[in-house]
Order: sequence, then C-alpha cells, then structure tokens
Amino acid sequence: MEKKIIFDFEDALVGRQEIQKEGARLIPLIQEIKSKLACGYQTEYASLHTPSDLELLGKVSVVIEKKKKLSPQVLIVIGIGGSNLGTIAVHKALQGDFYNEKNNGALKVYFADTVDSDYLENIVQLVECDLKDGKNILLNIVTKSGTTTETIVNFEIFFELLKKHRPDNYNDYIVITTDNGSPLWEYANQNNIDCLEVPKRVGGRFSVFSPVGLFPLGFLGIDIKLLLDGAGSIINGCLVEDIFANPAAVSASIIFYHYKKGANIHDTFVFSKYLRNFGQWYRQLVGESVGKKFDKAGDLVEVGVTPTVSVGTVDLHSVAQLYLGGPQDKFTTFVTVKPKSQIYVPNIDAFNMFVQNVQGKSVSFIMDSIFGGVTAAYKNDGRPFASVSLPVVNEYFVGQLLQWKMLEIIYLGELLNVNPFDQPQVELYKKETRKLLKEN
Amino acid sequence: MEKKIIFDFEDALVGRQEIQKEGARLIPLIQEIKSKLACGYQTEYASLHTPSDLELLGKVSVVIEKKKKLSPQVLIVIGIGGSNLGTIAVHKALQGDFYNEKNNGALKVYFADTVDSDYLENIVQLVECDLKDGKNILLNIVTKSGTTTETIVNFEIFFELLKKHRPDNYNDYIVITTDNGSPLWEYANQNNIDCLEVPKRVGGRFSVFSPVGLFPLGFLGIDIKLLLDGAGSIINGCLVEDIFANPAAVSASIIFYHYKKGANIHDTFVFSKYLRNFGQWYRQLVGESVGKKFDKAGDLVEVGVTPTVSVGTVDLHSVAQLYLGGPQDKFTTFVTVKPKSQIYVPNIDAFNMFVQNVQGKSVSFIMDSIFGGVTAAYKNDGRPFASVSLPVVNEYFVGQLLQWKMLEIIYLGELLNVNPFDQPQVELYKKETRKLLKEN
Repeated sequence: MEKKIIFDFEDALVGRQEIQKEGARLIPLIQEIKSKLACGYQTEYASLHTPSDLELLGKVSVVIEKKKKLSPQVLIVIGIGGSNLGTIAVHKALQGDFYNEKNNGALKVYFADTVDSDYLENIVQLVECDLKDGKNILLNIVTKSGTTTETIVNFEIFFELLKKHRPDNYNDYIVITTDNGSPLWEYANQNNIDCLEVPKRVGGRFSVFSPVGLFPLGFLGIDIKLLLDGAGSIINGCLVEDIFANPAAVSASIIFYHYKKGANIHDTFVFSKYLRNFGQWYRQLVGESVGKKFDKAGDLVEVGVTPTVSVGTVDLHSVAQLYLGGPQDKFTTFVTVKPKSQIYVPNIDAFNMFVQNVQGKSVSFIMDSIFGGVTAAYKNDGRPFASVSLPVVNEYFVGQLLQWKMLEIIYLGELLNVNPFDQPQVELYKKETRKLLKEN
Repeated sequence: MEKKIIFDFEDALVGRQEIQKEGARLIPLIQEIKSKLACGYQTEYASLHTPSDLELLGKVSVVIEKKKKLSPQVLIVIGIGGSNLGTIAVHKALQGDFYNEKNNGALKVYFADTVDSDYLENIVQLVECDLKDGKNILLNIVTKSGTTTETIVNFEIFFELLKKHRPDNYNDYIVITTDNGSPLWEYANQNNIDCLEVPKRVGGRFSVFSPVGLFPLGFLGIDIKLLLDGAGSIINGCLVEDIFANPAAVSASIIFYHYKKGANIHDTFVFSKYLRNFGQWYRQLVGESVGKKFDKAGDLVEVGVTPTVSVGTVDLHSVAQLYLGGPQDKFTTFVTVKPKSQIYVPNIDAFNMFVQNVQGKSVSFIMDSIFGGVTAAYKNDGRPFASVSLPVVNEYFVGQLLQWKMLEIIYLGELLNVNPFDQPQVELYKKETRKLLKEN
C-alpha cells in the first residue's frame, strides 16, 4: 500500500522552471519553520506540534473515557468556523452522511453552530425527545476565545435544556474546549466542568489536531491516534528544501503562479461526496489565511484566491459547462479516493439500451472513468489542474491531507507576502454587530 | 403580509443610469418572451408555462395519490443535476436537514445521484433494512433524456434490490419521470410503470416546476399548488418593460455591470442554513446558462460568472476575511428569511461575561443583527451587494424566489449575448468517458 497521498501536477501547465522560481522563495520560510519546530507551541507554527503532542492526546483520551461512562447517546458539538469545520470534515470523510440514521439508538451527533432559529429548533426538539426518553446527551462547547456570539447563544440554549432535564448533575454532561484563561475556562473551573485546553498559538483554522477536533472525533469512535500519525507523517516531507520533493511547496507555487496570471479562483473538485466538508474546511483555511487587505509591510494589496468546492460527479451536471467553456479564471485541484466499499451494477440486459458498457462493472470503476473523462477534457481544453488521490479513505490519509493543506496555505501566504495567521477584517462586521445588539 | 419577496439594490454601487442602460437592452427579449407566453411548451421559454399548467399538476397529483395507497415509507429520488437539485432546494428550504430523523418510521427520503460507492452503499444498506422490515419503498427515476449514466446505474442497483424483496409487484413501486419518447419512456410503457412526462423544451435546470420537482415534493407533503402559485405570481412582474419595476431585469443588469468591471464571481450569501441547497440549485442555473465558450454569433468568447454559495453566519467564520479584505472580484446577493419558529436565548446572568446584549433576546434578532453588521461592513468598505428577503419561508415565496432567479439568468444570458438554454461543453467530458468505459 502507498504510504502517502499521491500528488500529480503534470497537467498544471506550469513549467518546472517557474515552480522552481516560486518555490525558491519559500526556502527561507521552510528553514525558519524547521528551526522553530523544536519550540513546540511557542511560535506561530504551533499547529505543527499538535500531531506529535501525545500528552495532549492522552488528556483528551482521559476525558473521552470519563464521559463514555455516562453513556451519552447524543453528542452536540457547539462551535463555529475553526471550532467545528475540521471536526465535520473528518467525521464526514470517515463516517459519511448517514451516521445518525445508521446508528440510531447508539450514538448521534449534532453540530450547533449558527443562530438559525429553524435549524436550532429542529435540533432542540430532537434532543429534548431524547432527554425525555431517558437518553443522556453530551455538550462539547468549543471556542478558543470563549466569547464567540453564536457559540455562547447555542451553549445557553442547550445548557438550559440540559439543566431542566438533568437538574442534579448537568455539569457532568458538559466538556468545554477553550484557551487557557478565557472567560469560559474560568467558568469551567468555577463550576467543576471538564475542560480541554487549546494551545494558545494554535489558530482556529489550524486546530483540527488539537482537542478542538480530537475530543469530538475520538468520542465518535474515530481513531484519533491514527489521524495524528497520518498528519505527522507528512510534515517532514512538506519541509524539504528540494521543492519538487515537497508537495505543499509545489502546490502553493502552482496556485500562486496561476493567481498571478489571472486565476483568482481555486476550485477543489472532490470526486467523493464525503469529502465535500473537507472542501468547506479548506475554504476557511484559504479564505482567512490568504484573503488579505494589507500585506506584511502594511501596504494595501487586497489579495486572495477565492476557494470554491465542487463535488463530482454531481457538479459535472451543474458547473462543468462553465468550467470547460467559461473564462480561464480557475486553477483546479481534483481529489479522488479509493472507496471503502465495492458495489456493482447488476447485469440487466434490458438496461443496455439506456447506457452502454456499464453492466456488471463496479460503481467505483464508473466513477474513475468519469473522472478520467473529466481530466481528459480539461487537458484537451488547456484548463490547468493538479490531482491528489487518497490510497484509502482512513484516518491516516485524511490526517495527511489536512496537514498537507495547512502547510500549502502557509506557503501560499508567504508567496502572497501576507500573514497567514491573522484575520483582521472579520472585526469589521463584528464591531457593527455589537452596535446593533447594544442599541436594540 | 407582503405578497412578494423584497429585492433591495441600493447598495449595489451601480447608478440608475447604468441599470437603465443595460436594462434597455433586455426590452426586445422581454417583448419576445411575452409574445411567446401564449405558446405554452412550444418555445424555448417553455419553463415559464410550468407554473400555470394545472393539467400537468393534476396528472402528478393522481400519481401521488395512487402511490400513497401503497404506503411507502421511503422515497428514493434517483436523478442528478437538473433532475434533483431543484427538488432538494425546495425540500430543504421547507423541510430542513432533519426530515428523516424527525419522521423516522413515517416517511424518509434519499437522493441517489452520483456513482459514489460509499454513499450508495450506505443508502442501499438502510433501504435493504427497511425492505426486510416490511416497509415499502418508492423509486422515482428522473432523467429527461433517459440515458444519464449515473441515473441508470443507480436505477439498476435499486431496481435489483426492489425486485429481490418485492418479486411479485416491483414495478408498482416505481415512477419514471422523463421526456415523452425517451428510451426510459418506452421502457415504462412496455412494463406498465407509471410515467410522468417532462415537457420536451423545459430544460433540466429550468424544470423544478414540472413533474421533475412536483412529484417528489408533493409526495413529501409539500403544497405543490402553492409552490406553483408563488412561481406564477412573479412572472408578470419580471416581464415588465419598466426596468426598475422588474427585479429580474435589475438583478441581471447589476450582475452584468459588475462582471464587466471585473467581478467574475457572484456570491449568493444566504442567511439561513436551509437555503444552502437553493444556492446549489442556482449554481447550476448560472453555470450552465451563462458559462459559455461561444456567443450567439458563434464567436469564441469564454464568458461566465462563477457562482459561489455562502451560508451565514457560518461563513462569516470562514470566508468573510477574504470577502472584506480580498480582491474586488465579487458581487454579492444576500438572501434572508423570516424563520418559521422563534427560539429565545435564556436569561442566564452568569453568561453575560461571555457575550453582552444577547440575554433574553430571540435567536432571529441576533441573526438579524449579525446580518446588519455584515451589510454595514460591506457598505463601509465599498463592497457591492443586493439583498433579497423572504417574508415567510413557505411554498409561495420559495416558488417566487426560484422563478425570479430563472428569469434573471435568462436576462443575464442576453446581456452576455449567449444562449442560456444549451450546455455544449458538457459533451466534452462525456465523450472521453464513453471511450474509457468502452475500452475497459
């Protein structure tokens, strides 16, 4: 079995010289990151320490075991953005869209993120039924700052519900994941609520391998040690100075090259329904890390690649016409997987009149053929792309994929000369929102 | 109550003169469409006839009633692209994300679209359990041409499953929706399977108000008459020649104006989780209708707006940094709703230390305040946007929204001088795929 996800960039329409040229600009950064790896959580590259932090993994595992003893049948993850997108990405990639239906009665999971009345009311009703039926629930509140409006609102609503139905020991059914010293951290300590620490310098969008992702994923039965092993296994390879041997550096260089040439859109086109949420997680990673008004020198630049997510083959029946006929404003990264299951088209002769050459074949062979058709069409039309494939969809390779992308985006930030770790413009709408909340 | 969705374009950063100028170019088309309305399904504007086709609605209703007598507890919609995106959009907008969980035992729905082994295997397993439990299932196969690869593959798999468990009368549990005369149409007739006709000139992405959407939506309990009424109620208003009174013409003119100025991305930013799939439906509508390699004269143009979908407030914690800090390459249409339910933040004093001014307020008020904060931030930074609001989330206004968007895109096609009804480039990958399927 392959030990690494496979990255193929031969149809990226960028010469080796150009890749080498852009990539060379990354070498000082690569050296800096390597020199700081030993500093653990003390630098801006703190997130790279999470895959190897077995002590933190141990702490998470202890809380998972403790809470499992309460036999909760519903896990409610309360968090938004960097506090749940990574968790959803891994959960969906490995456990699919029908987890709650398949596991009915055993363990269900809900993600309470935004302040949408109808969505929230649906979850509240389902959870209240479960509580009345005597089932236990577990709330995992995830917010680095401890002050995220949507997260606190959701916490209050589920807290009240839990307290109503478990008046004697409601705090036992809560796990808080937050920065050490945040208001929520203090609250947890005062109320004897189990609390997991997010290392301060691990930013939200880089925090999937911290307790932010590890606690809920481990609770859902995902092998979080294997996830970390996968993530850890790709770090060194993404820190080599030989650019062509470094898939994160190559990928960043190619995206940057096309961005300079006018491709302001980077489409992540996944040929697996269950990687759709990997795409959503990557959207935040790209959007917040490289969408910047000012560069590192403080000059107004307004740069950034817009991330889009397409799902094959669904979106071939949606936006493929645009992608193959429209403006040359995109660079595409395809992502394919070897599925876990094999399912075959039956041999029904009468159906040959509808579509030929599919009878008796495996569904994944048909998927691969369509993917092959798509890449051929892109190639024939001179549309640039790269492709990544996961040898197996398991914790190990999903961990690799996410870790690789985090380094790719740090490199893309460097090429764009922006700080990949801040998100100052977000404050603009928050300030306006606070005014409105205060006035009314 | 308002009778119409509200469209506000005062912050679109386009002068009235410019809108008037672009809009004037639409008047001949508007006149042409009006003159052809009386021709029903005979012209390229056939889809505009669907909302008022009570005869077709009657036929759909008869099949719905007939199949309800079999008491199916699982509906499987087999179709892709234009054959299911509209159905999913309306179903999700009105029935939310938890339909199957909430209705467990009564009626569930699955959408079998692509050829993804793991996804398909999950549905097959769930459905096989139901069949073994004695529950009935209903297959609705939707494909205009009757030859869509993914749809036929899915049909074969579920057909075989159904036949295995209901060997005596499996054809009773199938409804086929296709063009009159397609191979599937013939098959249905030969095998005495109930069949609903898609009017030939109603294209897939414009077919949500034909039996394509009406059958599954009606079967799921949605008031399809009200949906059609809503759609029909906005047609005349979107055909007036006074451009400023015509929301579809204004919207198209604004998107076109910004496209010419360099905004190659049109973001549909919905502040309601359950409109996410409306955004996915709109992606196809935009992508296939206006993403074109050649214009009407046959000249190479490679034009097209790339549609993106954002969901508030989730994506404020994801791509807002890019939207407020990155390149000026986007025009945004916000969509807001008045939710069906009201849910309040409890008054817990201890929580004031996390976030101020939310205690005791309704969740929808908080959502509205965040939305207000976002529009203020866009405005302050000179980022152009329009907004649409639905007075209530019901069949009537969802029907209006979809119908309005279909006319907007026909107009945008006119401004871009492309044919909004074809999708020739899609054939490029299909041809390559057929080669691969044949060779292997």
